[in-house]
Amino acid sequence: GKTPQRDRGVLLKMHSVGICGSDVHYWQHGRIGDFVVKKPMVLGHEASGTVVKVGSLVRHLQPGDRVAIEPGAPRETDEFCKIGRYNLSPTIFFCATPPDDGNLCRFYKHNANFCYKLPDNVTFEEGALIEPLSVGIHACRRAGVTLGNKVLVCGAGPIGLVNLLAAKAMGAAQVVVTDLSASRLSKAKEVGADFILQISNESPQEIAKKVEGLLGSKPEVTIECTGVETSIQAGIYATHSGGTLVLVGLGSEMTSVPLVHAATREVDIKGVFRYCNTWPMAISMLASKSVNVKPLVTHRFPLEKALEAFETSKKGLGLKVMIKCDPSDQNP
Amino acid sequence: GKTPQRDRGVLLKMHSVGICGSDVHYWQHGRIGDFVVKKPMVLGHEASGTVVKVGSLVRHLQPGDRVAIEPGAPRETDEFCKIGRYNLSPTIFFCATPPDDGNLCRFYKHNANFCYKLPDNVTFEEGALIEPLSVGIHACRRAGVTLGNKVLVCGAGPIGLVNLLAAKAMGAAQVVVTDLSASRLSKAKEVGADFILQISNESPQEIAKKVEGLLGSKPEVTIECTGVETSIQAGIYATHSGGTLVLVGLGSEMTSVPLVHAATREVDIKGVFRYCNTWPMAISMLASKSVNVKPLVTHRFPLEKALEAFETSKKGLGLKVMIKCDPSDQNP
Amino acid sequence: GKTPQRDRGVLLKMHSVGICGSDVHYWQHGRIGDFVVKKPMVLGHEASGTVVKVGSLVRHLQPGDRVAIEPGAPRETDEFCKIGRYNLSPTIFFCATPPDDGNLCRFYKHNANFCYKLPDNVTFEEGALIEPLSVGIHACRRAGVTLGNKVLVCGAGPIGLVNLLAAKAMGAAQVVVTDLSASRLSKAKEVGADFILQISNESPQEIAKKVEGLLGSKPEVTIECTGVETSIQAGIYATHSGGTLVLVGLGSEMTSVPLVHAATREVDIKGVFRYCNTWPMAISMLASKSVNVKPLVTHRFPLEKALEAFETSKKGLGLKVMIKCDPSDQNP
Amino acid sequence: GKTPQRDRGVLLKMHSVGICGSDVHYWQHGRIGDFVVKKPMVLGHEASGTVVKVGSLVRHLQPGDRVAIEPGAPRETDEFCKIGRYNLSPTIFFCATPPDDGNLCRFYKHNANFCYKLPDNVTFEEGALIEPLSVGIHACRRAGVTLGNKVLVCGAGPIGLVNLLAAKAMGAAQVVVTDLSASRLSKAKEVGADFILQISNESPQEIAKKVEGLLGSKPEVTIECTGVETSIQAGIYATHSGGTLVLVGLGSEMTSVPLVHAATREVDIKGVFRYCNTWPMAISMLASKSVNVKPLVTHRFPLEKALEAFETSKKGLGLKVMIKCDPSDQNP
Repeated sequence: GKTPQRDRGVLLKMHSVGICGSDVHYWQHGRIGDFVVKKPMVLGHEASGTVVKVGSLVRHLQPGDRVAIEPGAPRETDEFCKIGRYNLSPTIFFCATPPDDGNLCRFYKHNANFCYKLPDNVTFEEGALIEPLSVGIHACRRAGVTLGNKVLVCGAGPIGLVNLLAAKAMGAAQVVVTDLSASRLSKAKEVGADFILQISNESPQEIAKKVEGLLGSKPEVTIECTGVETSIQAGIYATHSGGTLVLVGLGSEMTSVPLVHAATREVDIKGVFRYCNTWPMAISMLASKSVNVKPLVTHRFPLEKALEAFETSKKGLGLKVMIKCDPSDQNP
Repeated sequence: GKTPQRDRGVLLKMHSVGICGSDVHYWQHGRIGDFVVKKPMVLGHEASGTVVKVGSLVRHLQPGDRVAIEPGAPRETDEFCKIGRYNLSPTIFFCATPPDDGNLCRFYKHNANFCYKLPDNVTFEEGALIEPLSVGIHACRRAGVTLGNKVLVCGAGPIGLVNLLAAKAMGAAQVVVTDLSASRLSKAKEVGADFILQISNESPQEIAKKVEGLLGSKPEVTIECTGVETSIQAGIYATHSGGTLVLVGLGSEMTSVPLVHAATREVDIKGVFRYCNTWPMAISMLASKSVNVKPLVTHRFPLEKALEAFETSKKGLGLKVMIKCDPSDQNP
Repeated sequence: GKTPQRDRGVLLKMHSVGICGSDVHYWQHGRIGDFVVKKPMVLGHEASGTVVKVGSLVRHLQPGDRVAIEPGAPRETDEFCKIGRYNLSPTIFFCATPPDDGNLCRFYKHNANFCYKLPDNVTFEEGALIEPLSVGIHACRRAGVTLGNKVLVCGAGPIGLVNLLAAKAMGAAQVVVTDLSASRLSKAKEVGADFILQISNESPQEIAKKVEGLLGSKPEVTIECTGVETSIQAGIYATHSGGTLVLVGLGSEMTSVPLVHAATREVDIKGVFRYCNTWPMAISMLASKSVNVKPLVTHRFPLEKALEAFETSKKGLGLKVMIKCDPSDQNP
Repeated sequence: GKTPQRDRGVLLKMHSVGICGSDVHYWQHGRIGDFVVKKPMVLGHEASGTVVKVGSLVRHLQPGDRVAIEPGAPRETDEFCKIGRYNLSPTIFFCATPPDDGNLCRFYKHNANFCYKLPDNVTFEEGALIEPLSVGIHACRRAGVTLGNKVLVCGAGPIGLVNLLAAKAMGAAQVVVTDLSASRLSKAKEVGADFILQISNESPQEIAKKVEGLLGSKPEVTIECTGVETSIQAGIYATHSGGTLVLVGLGSEMTSVPLVHAATREVDIKGVFRYCNTWPMAISMLASKSVNVKPLVTHRFPLEKALEAFETSKKGLGLKVMIKCDPSDQNP
């Protein structure tokens, strides 16, 4: 039957879809927290493709347009949508969060208002990488990263790296990245970290002290991407008075933290739930070559070899595994 | 010798000084956290008096002016002062925080820039009460309390009550106050609480549910004034997605909290350290009768009976104990 | 045919509709700026009614619910909607702005997401008055009115008065209202103005000086509701350095203003286009009796006497004329 | 005699001082607006030097430190200082604004809290250029320039160029610079402008249209650096709905502008008065090589040839003329 979704929808021929840790997790464990996979679900939410067909009410897109897909699209204009924080809307449709299907497939329908036309000089893979980059943009924006800031990013996995990229693009002067793994840290250095700090068995206070030593003063902003309790604690100790700690990585339900230390120094603790309002600015930055996400892609597989792609991602080899859905165009 | 402080200082004849929990704590325990009383220290920091003499560079005050005293005055124009967050300056002088003397005495010298002239229709006691009221203003401002908000205030002691007053004055539509004590809650009701909720042995989640039941929806803002771990936890569960929890009460160094629950709903956790930039707005509000702090004063003692005053405060009888320092004028 | 609008729509039995200056203007002149009435158009956009029927996708309303209607509802989730400024969306449907019909009628269909349930203790007329009140809320929010502010409101017509109400509700300590008319000013005084100032032929600088004299210092915020060039100029001179002038009243296309004076004192000049995100907070305020809009209604007419109602409004008699659309219930 | 200034002051051996348009103006005309030169005044306020001696209360500097000088230092901690907007303080001391002497000399005393230590990898000339760069930072910060923004800068003189640099450093994706002069525009292109637009006799609306054509959409931010009435008008027409126009250039006292056009599209109009809180972030950016101000310097003269330097600047040859005050070190 005719549905509102259809009138405002577009049919896309998918091109590139990145594999995210959550995709692997749903594949292996069938759930993340309260989100449980109860019936077969298509994975994939870091994606781009080409418009094949548009709904009757769609004006800003037409067949042939290359687009990046924002995977979360609210179904209702509720209180959260109205104030511009639609990521918090409980009505949201979100690719590959059960029960909503993702877009790791040949053809896919999506809300046209959440498909963004890519300029000619932005590749499909850059388009797909806007999704992880958005996590960094949203976190750094919530942190209030601004000109000349010193920033600590805890964790050098893909999410740590997109936060590094976003922080630098927003004017951070110096970014320290921490991790347990020397190889991940060397990737961070390659991508633009000013300082890297390999963690072994230091106490949270010791980590904080080392960070201050590297930067010359405490960072105004800390972006915690590991979810590990001691790293969150280190984030609190490390952050400059009046600064902000953003929690991107998620750990166990209850966390023991030095709240008094944070509170009396007015270090704000903020979380992020996905992102909102990031695609247009990300596209602008990619188009003007102000941010470079290309080094994030380390592996590519055609859709037929999706299982191999997931195995690669699961093993933690490399950073971002891209699946190429268009048999006639496997280019970036 | 001639000092910069002297040129910009005023000599005050003290009139009214309220007793704060921290005064009682220094008196009884000789320390609060890292602040240790190592030599005799004058107590008192909720105060007002009359200008007797002004330094050579003082232009905005003259002898005879009645003033309220902001007890914290930074010594240096450091990075925190420059951005308007002088409460975070490590150079701050603060009355009755060791080693700095307070103003519970007959005559007292203070930085003139942190003495604010009281209009004729604001009493000395109202002037002294600007200090606790400022805690509420600063907390509610950090929380972003705005028109029509629903607010949860945990704790109905003096600090809970000033937060209630500040929240209503900033446009909150409905405020729930929680406490263990029925008598304190009835004072909250008297002072303006829309709802009161007596806590016994509910779980944090149960408290959150009851608060939502009273308000019809979750509060956008929670102001936690007890420092009790379960109350902080309740504050996180209770706060609306996208809202803010402000920590005013301080508990033990490490606190176990449902950080994932806060983070994924983008409930910000912010602390407060004292206050800044509150005296002028508080005076405006008192002058226009937009906020009524008078019901907070339950006891008065002349300075000669200070010990009795402190004993009364220590026993937790009433709310605010005022000490009257001017033998010739014991009026409010 | 079945339309998206229908699935998310509600059918309302109209109860109370206020007459706005723009309704009178369209009736008399057939246009406002670029908005031209080209075919018969139903007037009315300050309205409330009762739900009769709900669309298939509507969950938050049911027949019998009493609702206030937000007249502007965006048709597309475009860039402005996504960031929470949907009032700026060019796709917006707006009651009684040509070519969109208004709701001064017996039955009316509207987007359910822009109908807000009224609590039992809020009357239909209060519900209808949320529309003009929203103009005040949006202007004062854009101005950043906050606790203890001194505010100048230029103009004591209905829009000046709702700005007065909103400013006080948001914590303003003192509000001065200016106007040419003594009778309008006395209404302002009745509604809560701390000071009134009747303008005759003073220069802008003289007006600014008188305002400062009344308040004791320059107001941090000025809300200009007349659109008159000299009043806008006075608003710039009057506003405190670092403060904000909000333009609500609209005058001629080009305006001559002392921009250098504003710029070098960092007095921001902001305009407003209708409002967004005001209904929920207005309902909260009305429900908790924190704001009183009832004195704004000075005349009532049944729908059959709409012409008489418009004549009354046109003559500028009284403040707000209410048209009662429900023959079986003509109560407020 | 001993003064507070002295205790908190530093004596500096001056190294590099840039000539600003205002220096030339005071030299030629003896006044700017209400600021009139009534007795001999030392010029110069874009400066850096080396600490020779420190006051008794100075802790953060010591002899030998290389510093950049913030020329504005408030004398009193007044209301503006307390909220972090000390540039608006009427008590401010400002180099080379009469009656305050500037620092174009061999030795100079300044408030130590407004002298900032330069890292080894930042040259004296970069330190001096922080002053004009600060104008750009403050303007772009007031404009809210953020990641991915499109920005219009009107005017390609030194102030236009520092705004271009600041906008890019704060994350702007694309900047258009306009000017009458092709040679100035080519410098803008060299310094980083994405687009340049030479203005001849277009109407304001035509300019706006051309800017939109270059960027693909209207800029969210316009920074007007010419003060010319038609350029201000163009800035209003050009700016995206919901965006901000910042007035940096100052023209005649009264300006005729399409205020209704700005107001109904919620385009905010903000001015700037000098700057505040910019030195630390500017130093961070220079130290991390995130911004390059070196191309701004086109001429250098030793202090003995100051007159020649001023003549050069007056003729408008080149961009920034540097005067070298240290006979023993004429390096950048």
